[in-house]
Amino acid sequence: MNTIDFKKVEIRKGFVRDLQKLNAEVSVYNVYKRFEETGRFRALKCEKRDESTHIFWDSDVAKWLESAAYILAKKKDAKLKKLADEAIADICKNQLPNGYFNSYFQVYEPENIFQKRMEHELYCAGHLIEAAVALHEAGVDEKLYAAMQKYADYIYDRFYVKKDAAFITCGHPEIELALVKLYNATGKKKYLDLADHFIEERGRHNEPSYDFAYNDYDQSHKPVREQRTAVGHAVRALYLYIAMADVARIKGDGQLAETCGALFEDISERQMYITGGTGSSYHGEKFTYAYDLPNVFAYSETCAAIAFALFCDRLAKLKNRAVYHEIFERVFYNNILAGESKDGKGFFYVNPLEFHEDIYDYNETVKTKEFCPLPTRVEVFECSCCPPNLTRFIESIGSYIYSEENGEIYVNQYISSQTEIGGVKIVLDSSMPYGGRASVKVVGDCRLRLRVPAWNGGVAMRVNGAYVQPQIAESYIAVDCKGETKISLDFHIRPRFVYANENVWYDNGRKAVEYGPMVLCAESCDNGKNLRAVRIRSLAGAKKTVGEYFMLEVNAERLRSGEALYSYEPPVSEKISLKLIPYFSWANRGKGDMQIWFL
Amino acid sequence: MNTIDFKKVEIRKGFVRDLQKLNAEVSVYNVYKRFEETGRFRALKCEKRDESTHIFWDSDVAKWLESAAYILAKKKDAKLKKLADEAIADICKNQLPNGYFNSYFQVYEPENIFQKRMEHELYCAGHLIEAAVALHEAGVDEKLYAAMQKYADYIYDRFYVKKDAAFITCGHPEIELALVKLYNATGKKKYLDLADHFIEERGRHNEPSYDFAYNDYDQSHKPVREQRTAVGHAVRALYLYIAMADVARIKGDGQLAETCGALFEDISERQMYITGGTGSSYHGEKFTYAYDLPNVFAYSETCAAIAFALFCDRLAKLKNRAVYHEIFERVFYNNILAGESKDGKGFFYVNPLEFHEDIYDYNETVKTKEFCPLPTRVEVFECSCCPPNLTRFIESIGSYIYSEENGEIYVNQYISSQTEIGGVKIVLDSSMPYGGRASVKVVGDCRLRLRVPAWNGGVAMRVNGAYVQPQIAESYIAVDCKGETKISLDFHIRPRFVYANENVWYDNGRKAVEYGPMVLCAESCDNGKNLRAVRIRSLAGAKKTVGEYFMLEVNAERLRSGEALYSYEPPVSEKISLKLIPYFSWANRGKGDMQIWFL
Repeated sequence: MNTIDFKKVEIRKGFVRDLQKLNAEVSVYNVYKRFEETGRFRALKCEKRDESTHIFWDSDVAKWLESAAYILAKKKDAKLKKLADEAIADICKNQLPNGYFNSYFQVYEPENIFQKRMEHELYCAGHLIEAAVALHEAGVDEKLYAAMQKYADYIYDRFYVKKDAAFITCGHPEIELALVKLYNATGKKKYLDLADHFIEERGRHNEPSYDFAYNDYDQSHKPVREQRTAVGHAVRALYLYIAMADVARIKGDGQLAETCGALFEDISERQMYITGGTGSSYHGEKFTYAYDLPNVFAYSETCAAIAFALFCDRLAKLKNRAVYHEIFERVFYNNILAGESKDGKGFFYVNPLEFHEDIYDYNETVKTKEFCPLPTRVEVFECSCCPPNLTRFIESIGSYIYSEENGEIYVNQYISSQTEIGGVKIVLDSSMPYGGRASVKVVGDCRLRLRVPAWNGGVAMRVNGAYVQPQIAESYIAVDCKGETKISLDFHIRPRFVYANENVWYDNGRKAVEYGPMVLCAESCDNGKNLRAVRIRSLAGAKKTVGEYFMLEVNAERLRSGEALYSYEPPVSEKISLKLIPYFSWANRGKGDMQIWFL
Repeated sequence: MNTIDFKKVEIRKGFVRDLQKLNAEVSVYNVYKRFEETGRFRALKCEKRDESTHIFWDSDVAKWLESAAYILAKKKDAKLKKLADEAIADICKNQLPNGYFNSYFQVYEPENIFQKRMEHELYCAGHLIEAAVALHEAGVDEKLYAAMQKYADYIYDRFYVKKDAAFITCGHPEIELALVKLYNATGKKKYLDLADHFIEERGRHNEPSYDFAYNDYDQSHKPVREQRTAVGHAVRALYLYIAMADVARIKGDGQLAETCGALFEDISERQMYITGGTGSSYHGEKFTYAYDLPNVFAYSETCAAIAFALFCDRLAKLKNRAVYHEIFERVFYNNILAGESKDGKGFFYVNPLEFHEDIYDYNETVKTKEFCPLPTRVEVFECSCCPPNLTRFIESIGSYIYSEENGEIYVNQYISSQTEIGGVKIVLDSSMPYGGRASVKVVGDCRLRLRVPAWNGGVAMRVNGAYVQPQIAESYIAVDCKGETKISLDFHIRPRFVYANENVWYDNGRKAVEYGPMVLCAESCDNGKNLRAVRIRSLAGAKKTVGEYFMLEVNAERLRSGEALYSYEPPVSEKISLKLIPYFSWANRGKGDMQIWFL
């Protein structure tokens, strides 16, 4: 299945357009400023400086460059172009004659180039390659593209030909998926061979990991083809799986494809939060085991969410199934969007599903916990991988709407946009995520397949004004279009309770409320503290308003106990109106309690 | 109020008798053996050895000696006496000429004697003094009694007269309560003065604590009279409060008494588990803040439970209120008894209220969590304070049954026993905790006051065979006895639901089941895994059996979801019979899940 690249998809209005406008006008500049202040751009000059360059600063810059490429692919922005050009010039200028570039190693530890498996060298290289391909494909720059091919050639020489580096695979997967992108862009098979090599050699050599890490941390505990459960550091795992799916598709490797499917199933059916979050443990930012999904001390990193969405996309390319788009939608509208503040300036690295101000305040005072999620988003982290990952992802959302296979056109996400595929013009208008209607205007002859979201409350369809009973197969409605066809869809969006599997003991006896693709939450600023005592018995009579925040008011009860710590008297119920907002909107009004799962 | 010492109370049958028999025949020997093997007794010889003597090993030995004293006070046991005598001889032989004794400092850091506030020196001294008083009062030994007076005199000289030690108060309270005991035994006021001094100086000098510890850790954040909330390390806090209550009583200090009352209220109404456990945080083994009572990662140390029971006893001595005995009963039958295995050999240091085998197994494999409670009891810990604390406590339970004030006799705990108070003979037979009946035979004239436990389901009383409407005032029934009086009581024991305060968010929407003084729990070995999915709607039809374990079978439901991780379909209910056992019996049948709070 071929997905349609965002450069061929125009997003001119609606929810995602607003996101992208904020991204291009605020976020990308704000992230630049924070990175500039912290020395990430100065580091590219490869001079010893006061600030201590971090081993993965290059990857931060690279993801920022990739974001800039995606913006510049769609519009002129001389200021942004200049900033990108400066960074590119610094990288190209300071690249070593052999092609190597790493602003940390070549300045501070030149003797250790390719000697330390866990220090992100090839991870940084991978992100630089991704940036270079993005800039090339955006028509913005060829210099970095040439430079990174040279770097990739050097890596090929050292790791594939001479094999004289001190490690065989990098402790943080990323180079693999980047090499596939470079192969796709250049057509040079050596890059695919190298990606394939890094994938296949992983887990075969008992390579060292961090001291603190169990050997599944970087997915090197066994050969990747033998892996059936997602383990270890979630971002590492998902970046690896993305490359595996890519290689499986390109090489038609059924066994590797089956491995990817098993890993997806393990995540989506046993290790995924309702928000699409993955990697529940803060210790090692890791996947743990089936159904271990704590809400308060969830990790659920923003980067892991983005990586999981990308893995869904790659799986759909490999063999389309509605479930991949379904999960993509869940991850996007919940965990990914929660990563950014409403003003586009602040970011969450960690995305808990429940927040207790008391725990945070106590830990801040007495410093007792090793880990406690932050109450509000911040502009930069020491480890600031998530902000530029968000800016590049948001800018490229257009790539996940449409796909095409055997002449049939698929609408996978209802994001207002237009495109042209094989001469067929499509204009999509959608009220999602706040509404459940969409209209599609098709000009040209084709079979159109429209995905039916699992949250639908019944589908009504009109084709050229006339109600038609939709024929749904494998969660897609097929419509044969001739000439100009106008399709309108109503998925009868309504708030629904969602229940977790009985084995997720954290959620037993509780339910979450979803509205279309959005998981809703309550905050104490709207509802008072102690959200745990709130019981929702029914969603009948729920009222939606879309103002500064999307809000759903539902009838609920608050359990009130007496004063005593323990009592033989059950608590009494008090009727309340509970205000729910999208999970992605939480923590935009200061510090407070937040909760998704209700009695 | 005067409580009647256990040496005047004979426990010849029933639940507590069985505990004490196991304690005297198995536990005390087993703890001895473990301590002997680990070098704790050899260390008393004060020679440098291979094993590294721990700074508080002396306190372990002292609590063991105290246990031996309590056993020997009641029965001859030549073997036990010999073991105690050997330890005593070693201590007396190696005591320094100035009176000082510490098997760690005098051997390994003689230059640091009284130089390090946080290294438990006066804590160890306190336990040795407690042991000496116990041995003296049991008529077992006078040598240690004399030696420890000499040690106390030396401490008095250094800390009260010369004030030349490097610290003013010890980082671990204990010496204070020990000095009160020594004052009570000897009548020498200097010991009371010294206890008073240590109490009053605490929190006035900004003394250093551990590096990791916030300054409330050892209750030195403010003068003790200004303290109104229980903070810091729970055992430290409670040992301090015990001494404060003692001094308040002896000196008739109303302000200090009021402080003790406020601290008790803070604990019992805001910081106590339903098991009577206190100190919820593993980090620093600390009290945290109001209503912070996590079940899975509870700390709830056995020593803290014992200390809290002792604090209740001291408060009752200060001014009797039924609530002190009520809480004593809760702590004793739940957290304290859970500290020991059914065979008397194993001990819990940490007492969680919910256990998930999956979490434990995962953490054991990948070593991710800083802390996870143990699944089963062990025979010795590196920090082995709890085992001998249990052996001394169990042996002295007789001291908490009866009290006397203004010629009136109080029955505070229904533990089968007999005693004579002021010429009045009392024989108490009780079926508690497994039954709710008690009979009291009184020979002599007195006003008897019988405590009515809060868990009663209505009280029926017969006096000399005739039903009498009990007059209950402040949770005591008063009966005027003349000559020989036979009273029988039926508290109509039945299983009851208990609800936590709404602010204990961990328990919201859940309830615990109590049977009389016992909190019940379910284990997976009886009920299968995933106890979180069990819902109990009613206790009607509950069936009690008392076999190897007390067991209550109740009608319950198990919520069953479909296979999916998340679903719009609510779980279905499946009827089950849920087997509950006393919380104190948990973890005696291998590793498995355990739960107290149910949907």
